[in-house]
Amino acid sequence: MQDKLTLMIPGPTPVPETVLLAMSRHPIGHRSAEFQAIVKRTSAQLKWLHQTEGDVLAITGSGTAAMEAGIINVLSRGDKVLCGDNGKFGERWVKVARAYGLEVEVIRADWGQPLDPEAFRQALEADSDKQIRAVILTHSETSTGVINDLETISRHVHAHGQALVVADCVTSLGACPVPVDAWGLDVVGSGSQKGYMMPPGLAFVAMSERAWHAHKRSDLPKFYLDLGKYRKSAAADSNPFTPPVTLYYALEAALEMMQQEGLEAIFARHARLQRATQAAMRAIGLPLYAADGHGSPSITAVAPEGLDAEVLRKKVKERYDILLAGGQDHLKGKVFRIGHLGFVCDRDVLTAVAAIEATLQELGAARQPVGSGLAAAARELAA
Amino acid sequence: MQDKLTLMIPGPTPVPETVLLAMSRHPIGHRSAEFQAIVKRTSAQLKWLHQTEGDVLAITGSGTAAMEAGIINVLSRGDKVLCGDNGKFGERWVKVARAYGLEVEVIRADWGQPLDPEAFRQALEADSDKQIRAVILTHSETSTGVINDLETISRHVHAHGQALVVADCVTSLGACPVPVDAWGLDVVGSGSQKGYMMPPGLAFVAMSERAWHAHKRSDLPKFYLDLGKYRKSAAADSNPFTPPVTLYYALEAALEMMQQEGLEAIFARHARLQRATQAAMRAIGLPLYAADGHGSPSITAVAPEGLDAEVLRKKVKERYDILLAGGQDHLKGKVFRIGHLGFVCDRDVLTAVAAIEATLQELGAARQPVGSGLAAAARELAA
Repeated sequence: MQDKLTLMIPGPTPVPETVLLAMSRHPIGHRSAEFQAIVKRTSAQLKWLHQTEGDVLAITGSGTAAMEAGIINVLSRGDKVLCGDNGKFGERWVKVARAYGLEVEVIRADWGQPLDPEAFRQALEADSDKQIRAVILTHSETSTGVINDLETISRHVHAHGQALVVADCVTSLGACPVPVDAWGLDVVGSGSQKGYMMPPGLAFVAMSERAWHAHKRSDLPKFYLDLGKYRKSAAADSNPFTPPVTLYYALEAALEMMQQEGLEAIFARHARLQRATQAAMRAIGLPLYAADGHGSPSITAVAPEGLDAEVLRKKVKERYDILLAGGQDHLKGKVFRIGHLGFVCDRDVLTAVAAIEATLQELGAARQPVGSGLAAAARELAA
Repeated sequence: MQDKLTLMIPGPTPVPETVLLAMSRHPIGHRSAEFQAIVKRTSAQLKWLHQTEGDVLAITGSGTAAMEAGIINVLSRGDKVLCGDNGKFGERWVKVARAYGLEVEVIRADWGQPLDPEAFRQALEADSDKQIRAVILTHSETSTGVINDLETISRHVHAHGQALVVADCVTSLGACPVPVDAWGLDVVGSGSQKGYMMPPGLAFVAMSERAWHAHKRSDLPKFYLDLGKYRKSAAADSNPFTPPVTLYYALEAALEMMQQEGLEAIFARHARLQRATQAAMRAIGLPLYAADGHGSPSITAVAPEGLDAEVLRKKVKERYDILLAGGQDHLKGKVFRIGHLGFVCDRDVLTAVAAIEATLQELGAARQPVGSGLAAAARELAA
C-alpha cells in the first residue's frame, strides 16, 4: 500500500510531518539576512543539543563526512592515534585514519561486546612519551547495537593529557546524554538522519577549544572539509560553501520540536523504548546480540539463532510494511536490527513487537506464546 | 510579503513546485530496492544530461565538494597541473590544488575577460616532457558572468596527450551544451542548485575512462570523497554513504522535467534569456561586465558605472522582492549579477528587467527612457 512504510532502521529514521513540510518551502538565498537568521538560531540549538559552549558546525554530507572532517582537522601526517574497533563504524574510522597516513593502534572488542575502557587506560598510560595524539571511537555502534562507555574512556584520555577524544556519536546524539563539555569530548560527529528526526544530508561536528588548538598544527590536506573555513563563516552566521537550504529549514523545525520536548524527556523516551524492545525480544525468546547491559539506546540488534534473520525481516516488511535493518557484513542473515531512534514513540515499538510476533507465528517459528513480547513491552512502557 | 521572493541569483535557483513537493515525501530506506530504482533511473538521466556514456556520480555536498573530488581522484602528490583563473571559482581550484601539494601553473585572465585558449595551447606545447597531469578550469565563471571556451581548450589538452581536462561546469551544465564525451572532458563537476532546478545539497562528478585510469595511480588522501567507492556502489545502484534521500526525490522529479523539455529546448531557452538580458541592460545604458561575446548563458554581470550596484540591488529586493546577486570580493558595489539559470522563463527575465528599470527611475538614476530595456528584452524574447 503506497505511503504506508514505517522505518525502524537506524537511519534514515522517521521524519515528522512538520519537518517534511518545512522542506517543501522554496529556497531563499544562502547569503541573505533571512538565511543568516536560520544559521544563527540553529547554531544555538545545536549547542543546546550537544550541551556545549563550543562550536557545532554543519557540513553538507553524511556522518562519515563529519567524522572524516573531525579526524583530519586535528591531526597531522604520521601522528599516532588509538582507535576503538568493535563494529563496522569503529572499523571505518581505522580506515579513514590509515587513508591519511596516520599511525593507528587498534583496541578491539568482538562484535556485540563493548570496548574495554581499561584497555584504553593501559594503552594511554603506557604512552609515556605522549605519542598518541587522538583516541577515536564510536559511542553507539550502529552495526551491533552496542553502546561504548565513552564517558569513562574520555576520562582516561584526559588523564593522558595530550590526546584528544574524537567520538562518533552518530546514533547516540539526541538519544542519550552526550554532554560534550562535561565529558571533555573534543570532536563529536553526527548526522541529520538519526536522532535529529531529519532526512539525511547534513552532518555536524562539535569542536572543543583543545580541538581548535590542534587544528592550528594539523597539516593533513583538506579544503571542502577544512573546519577552519566553517568556523570562520559560522562566526558570521554563514557557511563557506552553499548549504542545503531546504535541509536547514528541516533542521530548524526539528530542533524546535526537540527543544519543546526537552533533553531529559527525549533521553527518557529512548531509554524506555530500549527497555521495552529488549524485554520484548527476551520474552519472545530471541536473544539480544549486544552484551548484557551494553545495549544502545537507539538500536537493538537481535540474533534469532536457528532462524534466518533475513527471512523474518523480509516477511515483516512484506506483511506489515515495517522496515527493520539487516545484519552488516558477516552478520547478514544472523542478525536483524530494530531502530528506535529519533521520531519514535511508544506506539511504534509496540507495533514493531506485535508485527514481529505475528510474523513468527505465521512462519511457524514462535518460541513463546504469541503475546509474550507484547506483554513484556507494555510492562516496560508503563513503568 | 511572505513567500513572494523571486530568486534571480546564480544559485540557489528557483525550484519548480513539483520538485518542492517531491521533497516532502517521507524518506525510504537507502538500501531498499525502491531506492535502488531511483538511483538507477537518475544515473541514466544524469548521463543523458551530461551527454556521456561514462559514469556520473552523485555526492552529498556542494559544487566545491564535487570539484575537489574530481581533482583529488585523478592526481598524485607533487603532480603538476595547469589552472585557468579568471574569477573567484578559477581562483578556488588553484587553492584546492595547492592544499593537496600539487604543483600549480596558473594561466590568468582579468576578471571579466575569458581565458585565452592560445595560452593553454602554448603552455601544453611547451611541456615536452609531459609533466602536466591535468588542466583545471571553470566553464561558466559565476563571479563574472564569463563563459570560457572549454571546447577549444579541451582540444588543446588532448593534443598534449597526457593531461586530463578537469572542468567546473557548475553553472553551465543544464544551461548550454556540455557534451562530455564529444568534447573529451575527463572530469566534470556540477551542483544541484544550478541548472538542475533543485535545492542545494547534491553534487555531481562525471568521470571518463581516462579519469578512472588516473584514479588508479592517484595517491592523494581521501575517504568520503574517494570516487572509487562511489563507482563501486553505483554499479549496484547504490551509494557508499547514506545519500540525501529527499534530495534524490527532487533529482528524479527535476531530471524528469528536464527530459520532457528536451536538451535542445533547454539550451535554446537559456540562450534566449541571456540575449534578452544583455540587450535590455545595454538599452538601459548599464554596461555588461563580461567581455563582448563571452557572456555566460546562466548569469549576466552588470557594472553600472557611476552607480553603487549594491544600492540598486537592495532597492530591487526591497521594492519588488527579486533577489539579484551582488559582486564578489573586489567587485562588491561595482557589479550586480542577474541569474537566468534553471527554472527561469521569458516572463522572469521580463519581470527582472522591468523591476530594474522601475528602480532606476525611483532612484533618479535612469539613463535612458524607462521602457527601453523592456522593449529590447521583448524583442529578443520574440525573435
